[in-house]
Amino acid sequence: MRPHATIREVGLRDGLQLVKSFLATERKIAWCREEVAAGLAEAEATSFVPPSVVPQFADAAEVAQAAVAIDGLAVAALVPNLKGATRGFDAGVGKINFVLSASEAHNLANVRRSTAESVADFGRIIAERKARGLATKVVAGIATTFGCTIQGHVPEAQVLRLVESLAAAGSDEIVLADTVGYANPAQVKRIFSAVAAIFDKPIYAHFHDTRGLGLANVSAAVDAGITRFDASIGGLGGCPFAPGASGNIDTEDCAFLLESLGFDTGLDIDKLVALRERVAQWLPQERVGGMIAQAGLPKTFGRSAQAAE
Amino acid sequence: MRPHATIREVGLRDGLQLVKSFLATERKIAWCREEVAAGLAEAEATSFVPPSVVPQFADAAEVAQAAVAIDGLAVAALVPNLKGATRGFDAGVGKINFVLSASEAHNLANVRRSTAESVADFGRIIAERKARGLATKVVAGIATTFGCTIQGHVPEAQVLRLVESLAAAGSDEIVLADTVGYANPAQVKRIFSAVAAIFDKPIYAHFHDTRGLGLANVSAAVDAGITRFDASIGGLGGCPFAPGASGNIDTEDCAFLLESLGFDTGLDIDKLVALRERVAQWLPQERVGGMIAQAGLPKTFGRSAQAAE
Repeated sequence: MRPHATIREVGLRDGLQLVKSFLATERKIAWCREEVAAGLAEAEATSFVPPSVVPQFADAAEVAQAAVAIDGLAVAALVPNLKGATRGFDAGVGKINFVLSASEAHNLANVRRSTAESVADFGRIIAERKARGLATKVVAGIATTFGCTIQGHVPEAQVLRLVESLAAAGSDEIVLADTVGYANPAQVKRIFSAVAAIFDKPIYAHFHDTRGLGLANVSAAVDAGITRFDASIGGLGGCPFAPGASGNIDTEDCAFLLESLGFDTGLDIDKLVALRERVAQWLPQERVGGMIAQAGLPKTFGRSAQAAE
Repeated sequence: MRPHATIREVGLRDGLQLVKSFLATERKIAWCREEVAAGLAEAEATSFVPPSVVPQFADAAEVAQAAVAIDGLAVAALVPNLKGATRGFDAGVGKINFVLSASEAHNLANVRRSTAESVADFGRIIAERKARGLATKVVAGIATTFGCTIQGHVPEAQVLRLVESLAAAGSDEIVLADTVGYANPAQVKRIFSAVAAIFDKPIYAHFHDTRGLGLANVSAAVDAGITRFDASIGGLGGCPFAPGASGNIDTEDCAFLLESLGFDTGLDIDKLVALRERVAQWLPQERVGGMIAQAGLPKTFGRSAQAAE
């Protein structure tokens, strides 16, 4: 029996976040359906940010409700505040991903409040869930965990204090995000190990490939015991601070890596590549990456789980 | 004091190997000069294969002699057989990289003889060096160490037996090459550790990024104690078996990774990026990659060597 590793598809949220042209709602829903067909069991399907801020997510409630109705798909949605969370609860998503930044400067720029105020917001979301009597998971995602384009260095002690506060507030999971592509494998091992030592619920790694280290960081996180990863079909999603640079790690390539490392991801890489092709057709102006889509799987693929002879 | 890691630039050999248009000899020599200016201390500068097979290397002797004359550059040249090695000895290169394949099928396709015959060839090159009374290093590079597009799986025991034979023949170093981009980090740690246990001279890792795992494999090799890496400016160099796919790992990005892991590479990444730009201008038909060239170094770059606070 191979151990399981999870990839959560975030293309519909992080991937679309910077895409200027509105992707039709029915295509977003078709995307969710094809994810499930390819074996993806969890998706961050939309973002409950104000449509005035990101028009792409004007259909968040509709997409979320349709995604929730798909058999076999656990649906998460990003929210920046209590208002977004209430919309998420209303839509019936299974998981609310509240995002705040380890970097004070980034948090101010992103959600216009201090990190401490964001932690208080998170507490109000947990309270709202209780008031509604819901079983929805409420999760904190820590952006700029590995460094910040505004503040620069983010002290690891600051990340750990934040994890402690969020754990105390009742976070069901933690996502550590390298929002701007600053992380390196040594740092990844160090920080994930330190967080795992103080947080005993699920921990997700969210890497961007902005500087080419995305999959090296996945491999390092695996070394630190992490088995849950966010990724985006075709590596869709950019970085507002590095125009033209690549975005999230690529779902197909991440699946290839994890399977090569001996994990069972439950994913059909050929179907992921087919979905990538469809997404590329839907979004002709976007950079769609992916090395496996280009080079194909090795002849040796599938042997990885076997012991070396 | 940070530990040192070495990047050997192989763009002039592996990078140019599949490039159809002939790059003018004086540009190849200028490339070598700019390498040294960027801090690169070793280059595989050309290949002594028959010009009828690879016309790009028709000027091998001239390039090698000019490169050897550059202060501060250790010059290696690839050779496929004794004939090539004698041309390398004549040109005065400091190191002869003899290439053979761990895969019998690949060795047959590449140099038209069995692996055992290639090992015998290698012995003849060592004997030729002795006959000439030279101090030239003679090194064996093992292609398809991590798998083969023809044969598929390459047993690790076969690689280890080959290393033993080459060590017995007197190889000064060993290069383990993932010629076709099949390697994964777990396999890299396993094989480099096993080879390091039976070979106590320098070991180089030569990775291609064909399937996106190039830098993940560098990081894994570092975990196995390896500190010497081949790379190519702008990731130049493709794979004849995966048209359109990327080639060698990228020198600038590999330097960024190694420095981020706390190593002193002695390299000036800005100058490497400038050289990449020049190479891209020289070879307008070629795919020139590089994530650092696109996204820039993080604000936090240079902090990596410091202890976590």
